[in-house]
Amino acid sequence: MKNGETLIRVRYEETDQMGVVYYANYFVWMEIGRTEYFRRLGMCYREVEKNGILLPVTKAYCQYQAPAHYDDLLRIVTSIASLHDVRIVFKYEIFNNSTDKLLAMGETEHAFVNHQGRPLVLKKQNPFFWKRLLEATGENME
Amino acid sequence: MKNGETLIRVRYEETDQMGVVYYANYFVWMEIGRTEYFRRLGMCYREVEKNGILLPVTKAYCQYQAPAHYDDLLRIVTSIASLHDVRIVFKYEIFNNSTDKLLAMGETEHAFVNHQGRPLVLKKQNPFFWKRLLEATGENME
Amino acid sequence: MKNGETLIRVRYEETDQMGVVYYANYFVWMEIGRTEYFRRLGMCYREVEKNGILLPVTKAYCQYQAPAHYDDLLRIVTSIASLHDVRIVFKYEIFNNSTDKLLAMGETEHAFVNHQGRPLVLKKQNPFFWKRLLEATGENME
Amino acid sequence: MKNGETLIRVRYEETDQMGVVYYANYFVWMEIGRTEYFRRLGMCYREVEKNGILLPVTKAYCQYQAPAHYDDLLRIVTSIASLHDVRIVFKYEIFNNSTDKLLAMGETEHAFVNHQGRPLVLKKQNPFFWKRLLEATGENME
Repeated sequence: MKNGETLIRVRYEETDQMGVVYYANYFVWMEIGRTEYFRRLGMCYREVEKNGILLPVTKAYCQYQAPAHYDDLLRIVTSIASLHDVRIVFKYEIFNNSTDKLLAMGETEHAFVNHQGRPLVLKKQNPFFWKRLLEATGENME
Repeated sequence: MKNGETLIRVRYEETDQMGVVYYANYFVWMEIGRTEYFRRLGMCYREVEKNGILLPVTKAYCQYQAPAHYDDLLRIVTSIASLHDVRIVFKYEIFNNSTDKLLAMGETEHAFVNHQGRPLVLKKQNPFFWKRLLEATGENME
Repeated sequence: MKNGETLIRVRYEETDQMGVVYYANYFVWMEIGRTEYFRRLGMCYREVEKNGILLPVTKAYCQYQAPAHYDDLLRIVTSIASLHDVRIVFKYEIFNNSTDKLLAMGETEHAFVNHQGRPLVLKKQNPFFWKRLLEATGENME
Repeated sequence: MKNGETLIRVRYEETDQMGVVYYANYFVWMEIGRTEYFRRLGMCYREVEKNGILLPVTKAYCQYQAPAHYDDLLRIVTSIASLHDVRIVFKYEIFNNSTDKLLAMGETEHAFVNHQGRPLVLKKQNPFFWKRLLEATGENME
């Protein structure tokens, strides 16, 4: 597994009567991708929240190419698409891990806010976290 | 609609690849039954929580008789099975509202706790709420 | 309630530890909007599927403006953004029904396919359904 | 990991506004426990269904001891509680894998049915599958 990659297995609960995964679940998988991405940067998102920095989603997008089925093993590849003072955009590619077929691509935009929902300038609020994200953004671009 | 009755329509998202509703969703419907039951007692569960009384589930049970399908209109009949100083048991019957067929029966047991998770004696903590629940319990038994 | 409007109440299950509704659930609400939109056009989506026409989602987008909370009553306003031979785009606005505040806007694009996943030209496959959608598209534009 | 053990990590989506995992999600985890249990018996549940044997849930029960939180690593221990000609009962224990604290215990009862929902006598329908389940039942009892 490379940096920013996460494996998940499709749950029966995630299927619908079309026999494939219900479309909203891809956004849950993106959240798993984010959580694991943070962990690999050495920052547990759980701890980030406890330190008073929340990242609510402000925009979410998904483009579906091919369906995922029950029990498929999927690979979520997460990266930072862009980083700004008060917001961040993550990018995701979801593959069938056995066939390497691309099933979906997505993006989520997040604001940096405090527990009261007020915007934060991350650079000031948590320079360490900001620096790690900045470095990670650079890695994508190489 | 009689007291303690709630109508819901089955969502596409709630189905699975068997073509029927996934079993865990019945517990979500029970929660809707509880929420509406509280509302009819004149107590918004949202307000109950804001007043520092939480009712986490300690036991949950469901017996499935016949499947629910997408777009079915269901009737949830909620009542209090028993009421104790520090816990309450709700009982649910879920019917297909068009055919009146019983699809499932269930029960959930809840503790009365505060925001720190400590048990509360409801009678002391909120005599009004306690009295309303006690009256509602009596109504079931008539 | 005007054409294309649906009311739903936020479920406890739909909240997350941030105390607001989890972002993926908005896509479930859009599906409810679509289902009710079809019903008002005189076409039950359940029947549409039984007649061999499926509308899998090919793209989904949501922009979040303000959070929804447990027990809020929401109004979903659904319309057709565009209609093509082999695909359709729906548009959604989600309001807090008490305050009339706009919480989110979204779009979903769907392909017309058969049970084998092959694209359908809806105009040929089901002229009645096509005509109803076309009329509904026109209504939006007035 | 011993036989019948599965690790899962709590998803943000699974939490609710109480700050802990919503109770219905434990039943989703039990399903994951079952899926992995089957795999270790050398029978992919996906294949079992393709061979015309479905196991819809007829009863489900969960007893909650302590809450699970976002990002917790959980261990689901699955075993067969009892096996009958036309039904099977699974038993689950869900632990916090870091602290070994027992969070919940549950059971699900399943019927063996065909794609038309008719009961099957598994011993006749699929002697190999029956034999594997019978052996697994014996292993529990040692």
